[in-house]
Amino acid sequence: MTTATDTSTAAAASSNATAGKVITCYAAVARGPHEPLVLEEIEVDPPQKMEVRLRILYTSVCHTDLSAWRSEVPEGERAFPRILGHEAVGVVESVGEGVTDVGEGDHVIPIFNGECGDCAYCRSATSNLCRRYRVDPLRSVMRSDGACRFRSRADGRPIFHFLNTSTFSQYTVLDSACVVNIHPPRHLKMMSLFSCCVSTGVGAAWNVANVQAGSSVAIFGLGALGLAAAQGAKVRGASKIIGVDINSQKFIKGKAMGVTDFVNPMDSSKPVHERIREMTGGGGVDHSLECVGNPQVLREAFLSTHDGWGQTVLVGIYSTSQLLPLHPMELFDGRSITGTIFGGVKGKSQLHHIAHRCLQPDMNMEELITHELPFEKINEAMQLLADGKALRCIMHL
Amino acid sequence: MTTATDTSTAAAASSNATAGKVITCYAAVARGPHEPLVLEEIEVDPPQKMEVRLRILYTSVCHTDLSAWRSEVPEGERAFPRILGHEAVGVVESVGEGVTDVGEGDHVIPIFNGECGDCAYCRSATSNLCRRYRVDPLRSVMRSDGACRFRSRADGRPIFHFLNTSTFSQYTVLDSACVVNIHPPRHLKMMSLFSCCVSTGVGAAWNVANVQAGSSVAIFGLGALGLAAAQGAKVRGASKIIGVDINSQKFIKGKAMGVTDFVNPMDSSKPVHERIREMTGGGGVDHSLECVGNPQVLREAFLSTHDGWGQTVLVGIYSTSQLLPLHPMELFDGRSITGTIFGGVKGKSQLHHIAHRCLQPDMNMEELITHELPFEKINEAMQLLADGKALRCIMHL
Repeated sequence: MTTATDTSTAAAASSNATAGKVITCYAAVARGPHEPLVLEEIEVDPPQKMEVRLRILYTSVCHTDLSAWRSEVPEGERAFPRILGHEAVGVVESVGEGVTDVGEGDHVIPIFNGECGDCAYCRSATSNLCRRYRVDPLRSVMRSDGACRFRSRADGRPIFHFLNTSTFSQYTVLDSACVVNIHPPRHLKMMSLFSCCVSTGVGAAWNVANVQAGSSVAIFGLGALGLAAAQGAKVRGASKIIGVDINSQKFIKGKAMGVTDFVNPMDSSKPVHERIREMTGGGGVDHSLECVGNPQVLREAFLSTHDGWGQTVLVGIYSTSQLLPLHPMELFDGRSITGTIFGGVKGKSQLHHIAHRCLQPDMNMEELITHELPFEKINEAMQLLADGKALRCIMHL
Repeated sequence: MTTATDTSTAAAASSNATAGKVITCYAAVARGPHEPLVLEEIEVDPPQKMEVRLRILYTSVCHTDLSAWRSEVPEGERAFPRILGHEAVGVVESVGEGVTDVGEGDHVIPIFNGECGDCAYCRSATSNLCRRYRVDPLRSVMRSDGACRFRSRADGRPIFHFLNTSTFSQYTVLDSACVVNIHPPRHLKMMSLFSCCVSTGVGAAWNVANVQAGSSVAIFGLGALGLAAAQGAKVRGASKIIGVDINSQKFIKGKAMGVTDFVNPMDSSKPVHERIREMTGGGGVDHSLECVGNPQVLREAFLSTHDGWGQTVLVGIYSTSQLLPLHPMELFDGRSITGTIFGGVKGKSQLHHIAHRCLQPDMNMEELITHELPFEKINEAMQLLADGKALRCIMHL
């Protein structure tokens, strides 16, 4: 399925057969908005200085992939042809000059929000936004030289990168700041989910909301993100975890993952925040996690929190141009609102700990894996997510 | 100037001549929006259960008084005739049944944001919003019986209360939760400013922004609030305190109170946030304090903060209906926005400490007192503030 061609005069000092060479393999290429991904042969260049080339073992589909594919993003973020995908687990095929923290054969998780470990942001305890390697939806090429490492085998034209990762490919190239070593390499399918949804959801509950025992939490949107957050809140001892979703089917899985109460906004003309206040003795919840990315849902989430201390955490991605539907004076009641990328997790330094904790027996994150398919059926996987039928579908490469 | 009439059959067990009696005195009454305040004789009822009647010694004028006077507030907050004023210092004339923490002759500071000490909010370390006695611009009567304690001597009609305090009067009645004992009673004129501007500004810097040594702060609006915040930031060791105001005259006082750098938005077509980022090595300040109450200024303040950790504190009052001019995704860059009432200070339990600290020799809050006038000239004092000529004018009663 893959071949290697030696085109590099400075092949890495490696014992493996492909290091330093162009690899030919298959990738699922997005050629245009809404066009089915095309499984086609591509060429993958060797990693340059401080880059890593991975062989992807498993990848999964996230709503952010769907949004980019549908071009539900600002114009500047659209780039085609492109290799989407950012949730995955892989093995290091080879590393570029200067990479020392991972090596050939290591099992790793790609992270779309990198960590160089050395900039002012990485050194700050309060931020997980690396100066150079933070998530950047506008970037579709490698940072070091502005070039693509992917080419179409058919026409030789470059294929764009996506979110520092591009995991819908048998091989991909990333900055080493965007690769996290995992050891021991267990539960590999689950590990794919730590690339995004589990880390973001659990991190939102642990790092950002900092849910405490006995507190109350409302989770708006019971997709994989929201359910991961529910699990995070549950193991912190939250006494009430209210799940809000317009699809009551999601309550079944929600219950299995820690949600204690449910609200379907379609069941009543009463605003959701009023119903949640009634369910919490009139006051509202301590924390709202907005996992949908809808400004009106955000407003309901905000108003569902207790005045004085209630906190709304924005977890979903807002693709509309609509501004925050809040009046400045509404922030004077002691309700706060916080955005978070990747659950506030510093990937290189903290993800290993988060993953280890999430694999303990008191958590059941594996509930998020509802489907598995071979890589060739990636369009089916995209559709399952779009239809709300799958939480996460693991693709086998 | 004042007389007392015994109308109470259950006069308090007090040795003073006025306790339990209606007091006739002068107050500056706002009879309608924009109409000059009228110094007229009023009757002040005795304090009811858990209420306190004060003789005001000094009061000062704040922009919130001006806004209410001009009716630059939602319709529900307009009430005339009304006794405005919320910054003051006074002496307890008498107390109602059940009041034990202050007594006749005590020097006290009225606070518009009360503290009962017993509700869930008062017991929470994270909120200074008492369930019953928090600031409530909609309320214009006493909480216990929905009545006014003020009547016009001329026509016998009730006169409304304002912000739990109504200090533009020789005598006023407050809930005891809105009265803070000060001991020893020193610097009484300064104490008037602790009712609002100093506590709010310093509290914003200390409690909400929690300014640390070496950090950078931008203060939008160099009125009394902003300058008090600058002093707060200065004694915390902020390395750069940037004052922003469209009136360059304010920079003189700003310098005296700790501001290190100045930006007049009118001096350049370049947006203020770009200028502030340039002044801070490209990154922006750690904290912005918005003391104006203008949504566009708020946006500049927000964008002036450093991504990753920059915090914008809303200190000013927003009287327009305009929503927050921020997109939800702008909260994902690690910039936060926080509103605060009364600088996050719990009045009864923390104000004494704040006031004590602000009177230490390393602070010069007395710079905020730019004018003093007899009570009869209160309209002149209002105009001085409206024209930006006074920071605080102390009225002698």
